[in-house]
Amino acid sequence: MRQFLAPGSIALVGVSSRPATLSAVLLDNLKQGGYRGGIHLVNPKVETIGGLPCYPRVADLPEGIDLALLMVPARETEETLAQCAGRGIRRVQVIAAGFREAGQEGEERERRVAALARGRGVRLIGPNSMGLMNLDPAVKLNATFSPAAPRAGSAAFITQSGALGVAVLSIAARWRLGFSQFVSLGNETDVTAAELLEYCVAQPSTRVVMLYMESLGHGRELLAAGRRLAGEKPLVLLHSGRTPAGAVAAASHTGAMSTRPGIAEGIFQRAGFLVVHSLEQMLELGVAFSLGRVPSSSARSFALLTNAGGPGVLATDEAVSAGMRLAQLRPETTEQLQAGAPRGASVRNPVDLLPLGDDATYLSCAEKLLSDAGVEQLLVIKVSPPLGSAGPGLLDGLAALGEKHGKPVLASLLMSQRNPEWQAARDIPAFWFPEAAARAAVALTRYAELRQRMARRGGTGIPACAGGTQAGMPVPPAADDLFRLLAAYGIGSPPFARVNTPAEAAAFAEQVGFPVVLKTLDPEIVHKTEAGGVILDIGSPEALTRAFAAIPSTGRHGALVQKFVRGQHREVLAGFLRDSRLGPLLAFGLGGIAVEVLAQVAYLALPAAPDEVEELIDSVPASVLLGPCRGKPPADRARLVEALLRLGQIGLDHPQIAAIEVNPLLAAVASEETLAVDVRLVLGGDD
Amino acid sequence: MRQFLAPGSIALVGVSSRPATLSAVLLDNLKQGGYRGGIHLVNPKVETIGGLPCYPRVADLPEGIDLALLMVPARETEETLAQCAGRGIRRVQVIAAGFREAGQEGEERERRVAALARGRGVRLIGPNSMGLMNLDPAVKLNATFSPAAPRAGSAAFITQSGALGVAVLSIAARWRLGFSQFVSLGNETDVTAAELLEYCVAQPSTRVVMLYMESLGHGRELLAAGRRLAGEKPLVLLHSGRTPAGAVAAASHTGAMSTRPGIAEGIFQRAGFLVVHSLEQMLELGVAFSLGRVPSSSARSFALLTNAGGPGVLATDEAVSAGMRLAQLRPETTEQLQAGAPRGASVRNPVDLLPLGDDATYLSCAEKLLSDAGVEQLLVIKVSPPLGSAGPGLLDGLAALGEKHGKPVLASLLMSQRNPEWQAARDIPAFWFPEAAARAAVALTRYAELRQRMARRGGTGIPACAGGTQAGMPVPPAADDLFRLLAAYGIGSPPFARVNTPAEAAAFAEQVGFPVVLKTLDPEIVHKTEAGGVILDIGSPEALTRAFAAIPSTGRHGALVQKFVRGQHREVLAGFLRDSRLGPLLAFGLGGIAVEVLAQVAYLALPAAPDEVEELIDSVPASVLLGPCRGKPPADRARLVEALLRLGQIGLDHPQIAAIEVNPLLAAVASEETLAVDVRLVLGGDD
Repeated sequence: MRQFLAPGSIALVGVSSRPATLSAVLLDNLKQGGYRGGIHLVNPKVETIGGLPCYPRVADLPEGIDLALLMVPARETEETLAQCAGRGIRRVQVIAAGFREAGQEGEERERRVAALARGRGVRLIGPNSMGLMNLDPAVKLNATFSPAAPRAGSAAFITQSGALGVAVLSIAARWRLGFSQFVSLGNETDVTAAELLEYCVAQPSTRVVMLYMESLGHGRELLAAGRRLAGEKPLVLLHSGRTPAGAVAAASHTGAMSTRPGIAEGIFQRAGFLVVHSLEQMLELGVAFSLGRVPSSSARSFALLTNAGGPGVLATDEAVSAGMRLAQLRPETTEQLQAGAPRGASVRNPVDLLPLGDDATYLSCAEKLLSDAGVEQLLVIKVSPPLGSAGPGLLDGLAALGEKHGKPVLASLLMSQRNPEWQAARDIPAFWFPEAAARAAVALTRYAELRQRMARRGGTGIPACAGGTQAGMPVPPAADDLFRLLAAYGIGSPPFARVNTPAEAAAFAEQVGFPVVLKTLDPEIVHKTEAGGVILDIGSPEALTRAFAAIPSTGRHGALVQKFVRGQHREVLAGFLRDSRLGPLLAFGLGGIAVEVLAQVAYLALPAAPDEVEELIDSVPASVLLGPCRGKPPADRARLVEALLRLGQIGLDHPQIAAIEVNPLLAAVASEETLAVDVRLVLGGDD
Repeated sequence: MRQFLAPGSIALVGVSSRPATLSAVLLDNLKQGGYRGGIHLVNPKVETIGGLPCYPRVADLPEGIDLALLMVPARETEETLAQCAGRGIRRVQVIAAGFREAGQEGEERERRVAALARGRGVRLIGPNSMGLMNLDPAVKLNATFSPAAPRAGSAAFITQSGALGVAVLSIAARWRLGFSQFVSLGNETDVTAAELLEYCVAQPSTRVVMLYMESLGHGRELLAAGRRLAGEKPLVLLHSGRTPAGAVAAASHTGAMSTRPGIAEGIFQRAGFLVVHSLEQMLELGVAFSLGRVPSSSARSFALLTNAGGPGVLATDEAVSAGMRLAQLRPETTEQLQAGAPRGASVRNPVDLLPLGDDATYLSCAEKLLSDAGVEQLLVIKVSPPLGSAGPGLLDGLAALGEKHGKPVLASLLMSQRNPEWQAARDIPAFWFPEAAARAAVALTRYAELRQRMARRGGTGIPACAGGTQAGMPVPPAADDLFRLLAAYGIGSPPFARVNTPAEAAAFAEQVGFPVVLKTLDPEIVHKTEAGGVILDIGSPEALTRAFAAIPSTGRHGALVQKFVRGQHREVLAGFLRDSRLGPLLAFGLGGIAVEVLAQVAYLALPAAPDEVEELIDSVPASVLLGPCRGKPPADRARLVEALLRLGQIGLDHPQIAAIEVNPLLAAVASEETLAVDVRLVLGGDD
């Protein structure tokens, strides 16, 4: 990736000599941006463009060029790419549209281009890319069409939508958001978001990476990269197409159907991404992390300093409703604040200085609040009073105090119109709206928590292939085969037996004790309950005989008789599935009426560590039912987590499995056993 | 209110002659704003200020002044108010702070000022107000401290926080939000938000009213005003202090504790307010309703026209996740779009014109989309391409098309930096972010639905005092008294009897059939279950005898024996309570495990119509359990609504009741009866 983002020299192939063209804008940006490497132009029609000589053909270029930007039409891309490869250029960015996003012909062209690149050892960004940028002072590369001159800073931005990317570069100027790297991925036919993410996170110039993704064609790779890198730097993800209608719109736009709308967000969140729902939120977090400091603890406590009650209350509501809490100030802090605050000011947290609070008072109060060990973050709100002085000294001073105390300081300055640029001057996260500052504080704390969790994360403790290979398992397997598979991985089930006659069934039932359950063993019947293939709570030998007669296919396959379990267990749903884009996933939901009606199931990318499974469980609101409930003791979380991990391992070990669903899994209370009561398996997965 | 907001003449009492003072700013705003009425200044120290003569004392003012703005210190307020009353001035706005918000001394001063005003027939806005404004061209009154010159428009804004109000006036300029009226309420000691709301809604210059409220001291009155007026014009409410911590912060700021944090929002929502959670959302809806058109139907369908896929998908996600749907275009529309769109454009909804879409193409496609009967609203997104032309013609043209077709058109223009003022030029709701345009479209549709609902709303059909006066009811009443009270209002309960011996109990149980329930009748025992005073599901005479011995206080009070009901009923919680600020409320939640664990109860202000009770039920997510569920038929909604209204009527008819809780109320299925199984009552309410 270094040759893409820090190339020693660049060739612009197909650059136009006319000034009002995209390629002319790009060339201009490259020159204006101060790029220090060599710029080589290819244009057969003119001798120079803007003072730079033109080579008539790619073949005429000098040796040793790191990167070629192809601005030729789509139909010339293959030929030009081959020429670049012939000239030893190993990195190519294809700007032209007219590929997968433009229908079948384009899709075939894209496939040919990708194959050609692969065959010739060329790495390729695009096609349909809007350029790339690396504003690291050592590189100063702006190879984009951005009409605005982007400011250098510490946010990297990787985008699947070029148009949106260029718009963001424009908006960012008003948001005080400076960039380190920017890449318009285009169709992501070769170089993926995951590879670029890895590069950007490794750059000292980058403090946060923002990603805008529409399709998740390389979702599995991105999830793995996130899981590996989120502990190092915050990764902010905006995934569009989260609703079914949005996913269809995204598909018609990118030519790639998004995966299972609605579930991807949760999976990415649990993989360590900070998932946002809007462009504005993405920019807010970009500002928060590129200019702000990540708190060293995750105490979730903040102090608020304001000169107007209303905005202070709005910020408090926003932060508290997201799980933060107002710090309880130490008595010394309150005393010191009292001594320095204007008469009538409220020195409890939130501290309200009244409209009289001048900058010096603000800074002295901020210092006292930051000195309080119970304060993890400081939010500063200043509504400019009609006559108040408004100088940049406040933000400067706050930035210095944050530095001194090693704590995040965020600001919202609801300023008068007289000096709007004030907001934009200093290196501290500052927002127009108090709620935005509060959201930023929440994000900083969430990331601090995430980083701690990542640092603590160990292995699963579940051995791979614990159950050995299952080569002997019939296809499709019947219920008793599945229970044996689960048992091989340490997941128990109520005692069961395969029986061929009512008498055998009764003998087993007497042995384990009534009541029992009788189930069909016909492997062709997938939806057993709906087909009348399951009879529950059979209390007597007579009922068992009747049930045996009622169950389908007993003559051919026999039936499964199983102990009917009563206890304080909680019914949960546990599943494994293999998604074509996101890879192997673990599913979890609450069982019983809560799930059937409230229908809450969440997913987690595998492999995963125990703390991720804990998060998966907590992400389902109905999981409160696992706690003490209606006089029942709480379910044993650790054993539930282990059972889920073991189920996931079965899926990971058997590429032929598309999906497994255990429903219900009985989550154990105290001395009970965690038991799989019913299990369904779908074959046909293929890693 | 007219004399406050359209006064023929004004006196500024206590205006300062020094230029850099608040009162000088206000005087300047008044003159710059073009106010046509008389302006009279009172200042004993100088002869003129800014060319206007000064009267030394209030007593020297001419007769017939409508409104006096008091800018004297808090301690002089009483005396000055008395002088104003003596001069025949009947409307006074008190600017000074130093009242309730400043502690006990201030609170007493405020009480004296209010009493004085009441006694002298003077209406009073404030104290602690930051001014008022009426930019109606016929009035042109700007009596505020706003440093920014507010733009005239059609949004009224009533705010409890003056500092926030002034900040909003400043921010609004950048948001293209123009104002009709503005009032800083201050401490709301006399004139209330409800009175001002009534006035603003009646003004032809006003299309939307925004309210910012911290305390809800006059909440009941505001709820009633909302219920009456929300069908006429949209009322946008930002209520701060919605979290407990926020409520405490608000209380320390305003001197008035907010009511039950967390429940007020839902109550205001159901009373017809459009409740928002942030300043930015309030401004978004202000723009949407002051510049936009309310759709004539509530079909929830929209078309989207864009030149970039990404922002289109983001807007689609935002709108669809809030319940909107992409309109299914008619084949003619698609054909017409195909004919006029650039090559490669997607003419399914969302319509993507690609970066090639120029303004003329945009307008012709917009016309075609608006002509489609299935399209209720149009969202237009334009990302300015690096080289594209960007003129104001697009917004002008879109505004004209919206007018012609009578449909809302909203825009998001993610523009380049070159012409940021473009966004700010035209009278169409336009936003920077595509998600904001989508949220605005959602709000327009929600309001269309609300208006329809309001128009259809009838009475409750429940007669007042259906149960007669309950003068004979013992204090405190016992369980059987309460069942009789419910029965008098048409709410049934399982058959019950008051018994004094186990034999009497057994006789009744034999008569109604086992199983039965036995309950203590000791009226002192409020939490009966916790005190061992309820024994459920008693199946035999022997068990009943044992139960009778176990229940407390049977010797003194006897006990209540009641049929234990089984059926397909759903358990719900129904309640009435009297809130000191919000008045009488109806409470509803799902019963059983769903409520105990998921704890969802919602509230509705009374009196209320059946459709409001429907909304109340729907606002509780667990209400899906009332639908078909686990093979049970759905609960009868109409009978549940009626039972809830009848319970509310009991509370309304009996001012001595502070709260009633029926838990569980068995919501009936098919031919079953709706039954109150347990009821608790708290006396001490006082209207």
